[in-house]
Amino acid sequence: MRDAYVIGAGMIRFGKYPDRWAEELGEEAAWNAIKDARINPRQVQAAFCGHSFQGRVAGQRILKRMGIQGIEVVNIENACTGGSTCFRQAYVSVASGLYDLVLAIGVEKMSEGLILPNLEDIDGLMGRIMPGHYAMRAQRHMFEYGTTLRQLAKVSEKNHRYGALNPYAQYQKECSIEEVLNSRMIADPLTLLQCCPAGDGAAAAVLACRKIARKYSSRPVKVAASVLKSGLPYDTNSDWAFAEITNRGAKEAYEQAGIGPHDIDVCELHDCFSIAEIIHYESLEFCQRGEGGKFIEEGKSEIGAIVAANTSGGLLSKGHPLGATGIAQVFEIVQQLRGEAGKRQVPDAKVGMTHTMGGAIPEIEVGSCAIHIFTV
Amino acid sequence: MRDAYVIGAGMIRFGKYPDRWAEELGEEAAWNAIKDARINPRQVQAAFCGHSFQGRVAGQRILKRMGIQGIEVVNIENACTGGSTCFRQAYVSVASGLYDLVLAIGVEKMSEGLILPNLEDIDGLMGRIMPGHYAMRAQRHMFEYGTTLRQLAKVSEKNHRYGALNPYAQYQKECSIEEVLNSRMIADPLTLLQCCPAGDGAAAAVLACRKIARKYSSRPVKVAASVLKSGLPYDTNSDWAFAEITNRGAKEAYEQAGIGPHDIDVCELHDCFSIAEIIHYESLEFCQRGEGGKFIEEGKSEIGAIVAANTSGGLLSKGHPLGATGIAQVFEIVQQLRGEAGKRQVPDAKVGMTHTMGGAIPEIEVGSCAIHIFTV
Repeated sequence: MRDAYVIGAGMIRFGKYPDRWAEELGEEAAWNAIKDARINPRQVQAAFCGHSFQGRVAGQRILKRMGIQGIEVVNIENACTGGSTCFRQAYVSVASGLYDLVLAIGVEKMSEGLILPNLEDIDGLMGRIMPGHYAMRAQRHMFEYGTTLRQLAKVSEKNHRYGALNPYAQYQKECSIEEVLNSRMIADPLTLLQCCPAGDGAAAAVLACRKIARKYSSRPVKVAASVLKSGLPYDTNSDWAFAEITNRGAKEAYEQAGIGPHDIDVCELHDCFSIAEIIHYESLEFCQRGEGGKFIEEGKSEIGAIVAANTSGGLLSKGHPLGATGIAQVFEIVQQLRGEAGKRQVPDAKVGMTHTMGGAIPEIEVGSCAIHIFTV
Repeated sequence: MRDAYVIGAGMIRFGKYPDRWAEELGEEAAWNAIKDARINPRQVQAAFCGHSFQGRVAGQRILKRMGIQGIEVVNIENACTGGSTCFRQAYVSVASGLYDLVLAIGVEKMSEGLILPNLEDIDGLMGRIMPGHYAMRAQRHMFEYGTTLRQLAKVSEKNHRYGALNPYAQYQKECSIEEVLNSRMIADPLTLLQCCPAGDGAAAAVLACRKIARKYSSRPVKVAASVLKSGLPYDTNSDWAFAEITNRGAKEAYEQAGIGPHDIDVCELHDCFSIAEIIHYESLEFCQRGEGGKFIEEGKSEIGAIVAANTSGGLLSKGHPLGATGIAQVFEIVQQLRGEAGKRQVPDAKVGMTHTMGGAIPEIEVGSCAIHIFTV
């Protein structure tokens, strides 16, 4: 396997687009990535499209609008890790030597329909849906480690503060810890502002081999590690306070990149709920097990601190259109490593990471975890 | 890219399974492939699952039933080429050196619901659905080349005759040319027995690198070519009688394998309708353009003739559960190249091919074509 680079990335602002087709959203993000890469679209040799709900041959439908015909197109589904899985397949297609220049597109329209449990999903119908599941994990974390409600709320406060600086975020409005705590209760202890929103969005990335990357880009971003794991997201049913699958994936990613957790300058991690960010600080080994609450409280995940987490606003503030999320994370890391993140720029960012979790109801126990490390 | 081999293949009989989950069908096919490969399931390093309608993280749901946890799982959608695209991703993952032993599973349940045009699909609502589309292509072929109704019907007669010898076929009953011609008209000139059925099914394959293949298999089947293309299935709107995308894919596949069309002993090709088989004889270059009708009439696609086409019964008789089809084609070729195809065995078969087309309504113009060549 040879090196592969991100030479272009683009996205559209996440939000609600009732009047636009998913194909339009995907197309706009793809053009943004292609323009950013300064390539001719005819150079694209293969395309990968990540989504969950956009019907058959979504990637082909997007490319047809763009006038790109005749290349390999693969559509990928992996629940909330769909975008990351799509990015990984694109990465493998370049790293393997199969292609020199490929396009990864993630797209989702979710604002028009709720994800409801299937009728045969007894767990889901009884309330074991995502907010309930993460609420139980939060309760466990509070019980085991004394994590506080204010620490949980601080995650949302931080991510909304950063989201307010991100023109691509669905919500660009700061909120205080008190506002987070006083927002409507969804699943105790998680209030509304501690849950990521439903929305529409798209993101895209252009990947290339070293030769092409050097030709077209003065600042290519190297994919230093790519890991995808599936299985139970936690150790056992008795330890929901940890994300074993993330930890296993992270160890492998650090080894691939030849670095450790403290080398990560900026990380987009899966904060679908406030507790998820705290659990993932620990599982990604940014801090010791049980210390995630303190980590956020002491400001260690702020810009300029130990690791800048979710500078884009994360899922909580930027939004979470499933198939788009993983590639939007890549977009943020590319911005940061190029020094183009504006007011939310992490000083001297050289190493970035993306982390997404996936799973479905009632199949939360058959989830996925994708981790990528990027360097410049 | 290094060599990769199929060391095990399995499927379940295609048909209607109203009382079984898609996960059960996929699991049974996967166990059949694993048993056939004589590997320990714990050796599987990654899994790829092809389907269109089975919901989120279908691959993970199948593997959970099998007790396989923690590996990379990717779910792939590509309409009727979903199974082939899945097989190709599994192939790339081994050929690239990323993994040494992987599992490809294709599954679909289709017997419980029709595929209906979307409400915004004006073409579809006005009748440009698959049977109508292929009927127009048949009319064009008859007009251009004098292809006859009996030649079209002969495709169905042959494939049902072979399907009757295949214990995995949905329909195992011979029918005469007269019965084909006299069956209910669906879209002129295509009668019911010239259209593939809707059904449920699953198929799986185990792929491995040379070292593993030699260790576990006395008869590994080498993947000599793998090609996936997307785009218009025909040249232009004025020449529906040819499948340009298939022809372009075939030329590339022959080059990859270092062989020509007349080296193919046995071919599973995409006979969703009788006319499709005739068009694909030409597009795969088994005969000259316009001579597909004569090719079937003169028996040149029979077992023991120039190229044995659809010895499994093809989509017409074996059935066509979208995501399963491409891998079921691989299953048939593996049986043939190992000399295990029983009464439908092609004598001395050394080189096999699979060919699938994909597309969706209304997106038939954004289809896919996957071609694989296999050797022993």
